Amino acid sequence: MLVQLNPIGSLDLLSQVEVDSLKQSSTSELYRLFRNCSLAVLNVGSHTDSSDEIYNKYHDFEINLLSRERGIKIELLNPPQTAFVDGQIIRGIHEHLFSVIRDILFINSKYDSPHPTITDSAHTTHVVFDMLRNANALPVNTDPNMIVCWGGHSINEIEYCYTKEVGYQLGLRGLNICTGCGPGAMKGPMKGATIGHAKQRIKNNRYLGLTEPSIIAAEPPNPIVNELVIFPDIEKRLEAFIRVAHGIIIFPGGAGTAEELLYLLGILLHPDNAKQHLPVILTGPVESRAYFDEICQFVEKTLGKQALDKFEVIVGDPQTVAMRLKDNMQQVRDYRKSQGDAYHFNWTLKIDDDFQNPFAPTHQNMANLDLHLNQPAQQLAANLRRAFSGIVAGNVKDEGIREIKQHGPFSLSGDLSLMQDMDLLLQAFVKQGRMKLPGTKYVPCYKIKT
Amino acid sequence: MLVQLNPIGSLDLLSQVEVDSLKQSSTSELYRLFRNCSLAVLNVGSHTDSSDEIYNKYHDFEINLLSRERGIKIELLNPPQTAFVDGQIIRGIHEHLFSVIRDILFINSKYDSPHPTITDSAHTTHVVFDMLRNANALPVNTDPNMIVCWGGHSINEIEYCYTKEVGYQLGLRGLNICTGCGPGAMKGPMKGATIGHAKQRIKNNRYLGLTEPSIIAAEPPNPIVNELVIFPDIEKRLEAFIRVAHGIIIFPGGAGTAEELLYLLGILLHPDNAKQHLPVILTGPVESRAYFDEICQFVEKTLGKQALDKFEVIVGDPQTVAMRLKDNMQQVRDYRKSQGDAYHFNWTLKIDDDFQNPFAPTHQNMANLDLHLNQPAQQLAANLRRAFSGIVAGNVKDEGIREIKQHGPFSLSGDLSLMQDMDLLLQAFVKQGRMKLPGTKYVPCYKIKT
Amino acid sequence: MLVQLNPIGSLDLLSQVEVDSLKQSSTSELYRLFRNCSLAVLNVGSHTDSSDEIYNKYHDFEINLLSRERGIKIELLNPPQTAFVDGQIIRGIHEHLFSVIRDILFINSKYDSPHPTITDSAHTTHVVFDMLRNANALPVNTDPNMIVCWGGHSINEIEYCYTKEVGYQLGLRGLNICTGCGPGAMKGPMKGATIGHAKQRIKNNRYLGLTEPSIIAAEPPNPIVNELVIFPDIEKRLEAFIRVAHGIIIFPGGAGTAEELLYLLGILLHPDNAKQHLPVILTGPVESRAYFDEICQFVEKTLGKQALDKFEVIVGDPQTVAMRLKDNMQQVRDYRKSQGDAYHFNWTLKIDDDFQNPFAPTHQNMANLDLHLNQPAQQLAANLRRAFSGIVAGNVKDEGIREIKQHGPFSLSGDLSLMQDMDLLLQAFVKQGRMKLPGTKYVPCYKIKT
Amino acid sequence: MLVQLNPIGSLDLLSQVEVDSLKQSSTSELYRLFRNCSLAVLNVGSHTDSSDEIYNKYHDFEINLLSRERGIKIELLNPPQTAFVDGQIIRGIHEHLFSVIRDILFINSKYDSPHPTITDSAHTTHVVFDMLRNANALPVNTDPNMIVCWGGHSINEIEYCYTKEVGYQLGLRGLNICTGCGPGAMKGPMKGATIGHAKQRIKNNRYLGLTEPSIIAAEPPNPIVNELVIFPDIEKRLEAFIRVAHGIIIFPGGAGTAEELLYLLGILLHPDNAKQHLPVILTGPVESRAYFDEICQFVEKTLGKQALDKFEVIVGDPQTVAMRLKDNMQQVRDYRKSQGDAYHFNWTLKIDDDFQNPFAPTHQNMANLDLHLNQPAQQLAANLRRAFSGIVAGNVKDEGIREIKQHGPFSLSGDLSLMQDMDLLLQAFVKQGRMKLPGTKYVPCYKIKT
Repeated sequence: MLVQLNPIGSLDLLSQVEVDSLKQSSTSELYRLFRNCSLAVLNVGSHTDSSDEIYNKYHDFEINLLSRERGIKIELLNPPQTAFVDGQIIRGIHEHLFSVIRDILFINSKYDSPHPTITDSAHTTHVVFDMLRNANALPVNTDPNMIVCWGGHSINEIEYCYTKEVGYQLGLRGLNICTGCGPGAMKGPMKGATIGHAKQRIKNNRYLGLTEPSIIAAEPPNPIVNELVIFPDIEKRLEAFIRVAHGIIIFPGGAGTAEELLYLLGILLHPDNAKQHLPVILTGPVESRAYFDEICQFVEKTLGKQALDKFEVIVGDPQTVAMRLKDNMQQVRDYRKSQGDAYHFNWTLKIDDDFQNPFAPTHQNMANLDLHLNQPAQQLAANLRRAFSGIVAGNVKDEGIREIKQHGPFSLSGDLSLMQDMDLLLQAFVKQGRMKLPGTKYVPCYKIKT
Repeated sequence: MLVQLNPIGSLDLLSQVEVDSLKQSSTSELYRLFRNCSLAVLNVGSHTDSSDEIYNKYHDFEINLLSRERGIKIELLNPPQTAFVDGQIIRGIHEHLFSVIRDILFINSKYDSPHPTITDSAHTTHVVFDMLRNANALPVNTDPNMIVCWGGHSINEIEYCYTKEVGYQLGLRGLNICTGCGPGAMKGPMKGATIGHAKQRIKNNRYLGLTEPSIIAAEPPNPIVNELVIFPDIEKRLEAFIRVAHGIIIFPGGAGTAEELLYLLGILLHPDNAKQHLPVILTGPVESRAYFDEICQFVEKTLGKQALDKFEVIVGDPQTVAMRLKDNMQQVRDYRKSQGDAYHFNWTLKIDDDFQNPFAPTHQNMANLDLHLNQPAQQLAANLRRAFSGIVAGNVKDEGIREIKQHGPFSLSGDLSLMQDMDLLLQAFVKQGRMKLPGTKYVPCYKIKT
Repeated sequence: MLVQLNPIGSLDLLSQVEVDSLKQSSTSELYRLFRNCSLAVLNVGSHTDSSDEIYNKYHDFEINLLSRERGIKIELLNPPQTAFVDGQIIRGIHEHLFSVIRDILFINSKYDSPHPTITDSAHTTHVVFDMLRNANALPVNTDPNMIVCWGGHSINEIEYCYTKEVGYQLGLRGLNICTGCGPGAMKGPMKGATIGHAKQRIKNNRYLGLTEPSIIAAEPPNPIVNELVIFPDIEKRLEAFIRVAHGIIIFPGGAGTAEELLYLLGILLHPDNAKQHLPVILTGPVESRAYFDEICQFVEKTLGKQALDKFEVIVGDPQTVAMRLKDNMQQVRDYRKSQGDAYHFNWTLKIDDDFQNPFAPTHQNMANLDLHLNQPAQQLAANLRRAFSGIVAGNVKDEGIREIKQHGPFSLSGDLSLMQDMDLLLQAFVKQGRMKLPGTKYVPCYKIKT
Repeated sequence: MLVQLNPIGSLDLLSQVEVDSLKQSSTSELYRLFRNCSLAVLNVGSHTDSSDEIYNKYHDFEINLLSRERGIKIELLNPPQTAFVDGQIIRGIHEHLFSVIRDILFINSKYDSPHPTITDSAHTTHVVFDMLRNANALPVNTDPNMIVCWGGHSINEIEYCYTKEVGYQLGLRGLNICTGCGPGAMKGPMKGATIGHAKQRIKNNRYLGLTEPSIIAAEPPNPIVNELVIFPDIEKRLEAFIRVAHGIIIFPGGAGTAEELLYLLGILLHPDNAKQHLPVILTGPVESRAYFDEICQFVEKTLGKQALDKFEVIVGDPQTVAMRLKDNMQQVRDYRKSQGDAYHFNWTLKIDDDFQNPFAPTHQNMANLDLHLNQPAQQLAANLRRAFSGIVAGNVKDEGIREIKQHGPFSLSGDLSLMQDMDLLLQAFVKQGRMKLPGTKYVPCYKIKT
């Protein structure tokens, strides 16, 4: 099957030099990246979260750029059928394809590499900003209203409905949604907000999805996402989340959600951020109360009581969650104004190198992680974040899965009590089905040495 | 509680003469109409469909117009709280209030009466057109895409989800939705279409709600409705439905849905309309298959086999419903073009006086209905339509309920076999909970003399 | 030559009843009105201001409405070629044609006559408002910014350049222009403002033209006019001018301009309007200083010193004119706000019946005018206004010209000194070429009995 | 005097790294460039074309960027007053300031230098495209309609009126204007087109101005320009002109216009461009006929008869000029389509290195120019282009003027007959006042050795 797509947005304006760089060639890493991200985006609605499996299933998929008098056309060979309605590609997915091109070219043309090595902290932040700006994802002249929603891609029906209801209540209050843009807790709030926004006649509603090449296949952007940005690595994606956030909601989730929470707490615990105003709420249905107890205990034991002050837990009350966040927007605004900081990008938030530099989850790196309690809370948070990041890779990412297949599970070690707490938490995730989408038996990709 | 609302749309532009005509005065019928429709619109989400009950509950509600330098403000005293989020009126409801003003003033200023008596058929059609035009509900330069969805306000959860899924599939295909704008089968398709439209990035999506003063309280417009028109009577509302429709879906419903189906069939059976192209699909989940069997039998027995040719029944397949309608749009377009008829308004459809002249469901008029089989099919359809219309009034409309309270149930009589068929159908509606919203025991407002 | 025009705006939405009413028929006054206004609008750029001559020249011009699937088409037979560029009608003129249809139908369908007789003052004002509203010429949510510019259709090149420069300075300050929409002082300010608005990137710039059927042929709307309203008579047009005005400029002109000034002064002198804030500036190039001296003397002698306080004269300084008006907008705003009056329509301005009731300039009516000094200033202003109105009719209006041809010049009589002053003023107009476009020798249509 | 300007457009979104790069510092070349271009843009309407003089006059002008919560503010110290109306900056000029920032940052952040050295031809073209794209000056989905107008900044009143009339006729036909964005023949067509566009209700009218840092002070962009792009050097600016052009008009002008014509002919004479469809018209009022005779003779003598086939001369007929270009748009469209080339950027036009590499007009380089007839026409055109480019620099550019002051006039030498022809042409320019704005006596910046 062969499909040709018309250009949309301004991305159809590519120069010959750029088009050439995306040409198919067996040896080109850039083409492989372009093809895989495009495939991921087209494969929305798939029922597996194994990148590996997806790439195998669509091994004969190809994508090409064609120059035409009105701009660039995209040619697709053997694309997944879920992206089409009666033979016509869904417009949202069509746009996502162009986001893929935009972001891949952006990084590559600036740094002559799809994975630039940037060591300067200020420059890393500049890149995050530059990509968001280039994606038109930094609106000017709007007051703070962006709520980042984190949570599992694999959650149960009750939890999913709850995330929709929270999204609806946020939407009714004119708040926008930013997520990691996959299924589950990343999709529910957007769906709910869509209805809320419709009732409020909000036309410039934003459903911002932030992703990166290694996760995009496992968590393909749902087509409601109307601003999609693909960062070159997980760390820049995480930095983008918290610099665009005016408030953060954390729904139940698995290892990925734990990674996000630890990242966030590690940064909020930095002394320079003591005065930052960024409301964080952990919430879920009453049926999921136990989950939050477990998380809180783990945080308290590892990062201390102070870390608990950085967020609030609200169980079974979507309306209060939304009201609380709405109320906080005024304070976020005031704080930014007092600092002369932008509303659309939190420049003043301090993020240490430890949280910016990419972590490659090799067996070696995982084994070397310093997981002892006698280190500053932020540093421990940074290391725990890396540990969970590695587990996500082993669970659903292409390269991670291959590593695990070849070398067996990652090995994690450290203080006994910490290891036991971590083990407990991870087992709970497994039992609750949060590690992988239903339909497969979960085989852990890690061993905890206790 | 007192709320002041800013003007929106162009309706804030009222002249002194117009504002004066809506001033509160105990004797003014116009003010009462204005107040009651406004109350109905504000009372969305209520859990009763008894207009009577609603008016009693909010007996101290008042509404006033105030002239200000930027236009007219609306002042509300003791409005229902469901219309507000954190003290702010929902924008969709805010717009509905202005639609109420617009339509009431429109009729009154042209005809010096809120219920003008119009006997000329061409003029009746002109009024329907004129009101739609004045409401900006006749888009030019768009191809046929308006699907009218009829069905019960009281349907079960499975049926409701089914209407949402149908709406979603319609939305994905760029089709718009028009309904009677209440809950149940009138809300589901709009909700589903909203998600479909969001995925397709359709910004000029239309959720057209057509209503009239006597039904609006029982079936308040849901806030997704972004074009609301309040016709002076049920007959003009029905005419509007079928002149703006490019396709019609009928979901399971009760007496009101039966009224709509009979109205539609009566008109489509007119010889002048033999060549009209207007696709009609009856659809519902597999669990509701029996309902459609009952309906089809009733239609066949009363209007004959030819009437069955005017529609198609599709059970349990939302995608096929949507594809079928989408496919038909091209033929609707071709037919209109061949006739030089407008896409936005079906001028060439022949509607007899019998279907245009208002029917007042008094006990006398109901008892006098000619319900014998030995009359032309269209005429029988017209009379059956009136019978069901009367039952709707007795079930949920303010005046109807009062009539029934005072004089007891309506009495219907006619051919024995017809009476038996009708009885069967109505009892099925009752048993299936389609007559009234759950929570009340249904007491029939009619007696069928067999 | 035959041209078919596509519908534009919302006016393409006509009902069958409406289309029928504009059908060509030799006996229909409505069709004649429709045809003549349409011809006038198409004849822009013509070099005569004699309506009579124009109607003769294009005696074989015809206009018809055709119903099509996307709305109404206009068919033109033998239209003036000046309306076309390379065979395509100029878009501005195309829109004007639809304004003609809109306004003629509006009045006719409400009052069953193109020239309704309305005697109630409040209702007259309502009609003026209703027509402006229907023409979308009453913007909401904008601050006061509409400057009405009056002045002659026949002015010299220096005066014309001056009106452009004033328009440019107004445009640079974000002010909009309203004129009688013909050539000369009615066109210059719009042309200048267009450049000013372009430099200020103002996209919603308004060039409002107000006219009426008897003058439209002599002073066809220039195509820059982007909001055209055709009132049924001169008095409603004058009322519209001063109710939409936030400031008024009077450039040099002839009898029509004198009519406008006297109308304005007559109203501003009404005691009820003592506190109204409406800045009025008479301005022209230094070369035209004498003209203003003459006007001021005439005003002082007839309406007294108090009348001079109602306006300011600024000679040869476009920038100061614009600054003065811009500064005044804040006070206009404050005054309206203090009265709860709309910004877009001056409801509180008192206009007496004397200024509202149409004056038919027959020989009889002209001869009967009470032109004595011993009457209240407002009343004298009203009568003088009528006298000048009659002279305009005799100069350029179809019916007036025919009357004069048949019965000779109008006869005016009254107090000797007043008659002498009037004679002086009119002779000055004649000498300065202000009565008629250059190229013809002016033959006075009046005799002043002294 | 100190003024603060709010951010506009998307350019307010600057990162900290970018803001820092534009900070004032005595040693920063980037800041000097930023300041001088900003000053030039603010100094519109000045009555001198000597960059030198302007920089001296406003030596105490300063510009600073300030970070604020809603984006970047610009602070101006002692700006020229001509940019302001009643203390408010003209919006068009405000936008031009942000264009300056945008383009300077764009080049600098990509190449770490404001004047990158690019030697690869394809990359040079990529930069030209990249800057236009970044400036949103490459519209997609529009048919060919961009007319580049070249001509002198110093022309007489009759010629100026003629350029306005041509612009008016182009505007009436929906064509857009691109010029070098200074006064004279660069301003007239835009002014005229503004009126034409207004009559045709064209809202997305484009007035594209292309300039570069060394000329911008002498020819400041007029505020009608609504898309301004500042290229890093004259050669990229020239390339931009002919790649965005769908048609070219050349009005009378001096050395700069001659440079443009020679550049254009040199490229069109390239064999690879033989089939290119790019209409070129030389036009002016009948009073300027002699000018075109001189130009044609010079072209014929230097580049041969074949060069005369590349353009058409139309004297005294604005309407025909516009009709001819309008007619040609269809052929431009067809040619591009046949080549799969973009409408918005002429990728297939071949431009040799000779025309792309920057020419620095030093005395050495000017003296070394090969101005002999025995070389291929294109090559001679390239060298003549450089000679005229140097003369422009000596006339009006800051650095050029300083060079001449220090070292005396440039010396040009070559074949005797060529030198004589050139001398004749330049003397004619001088006599006709085309070299400098009126008010100064022109002292030639060159000596021709014959």
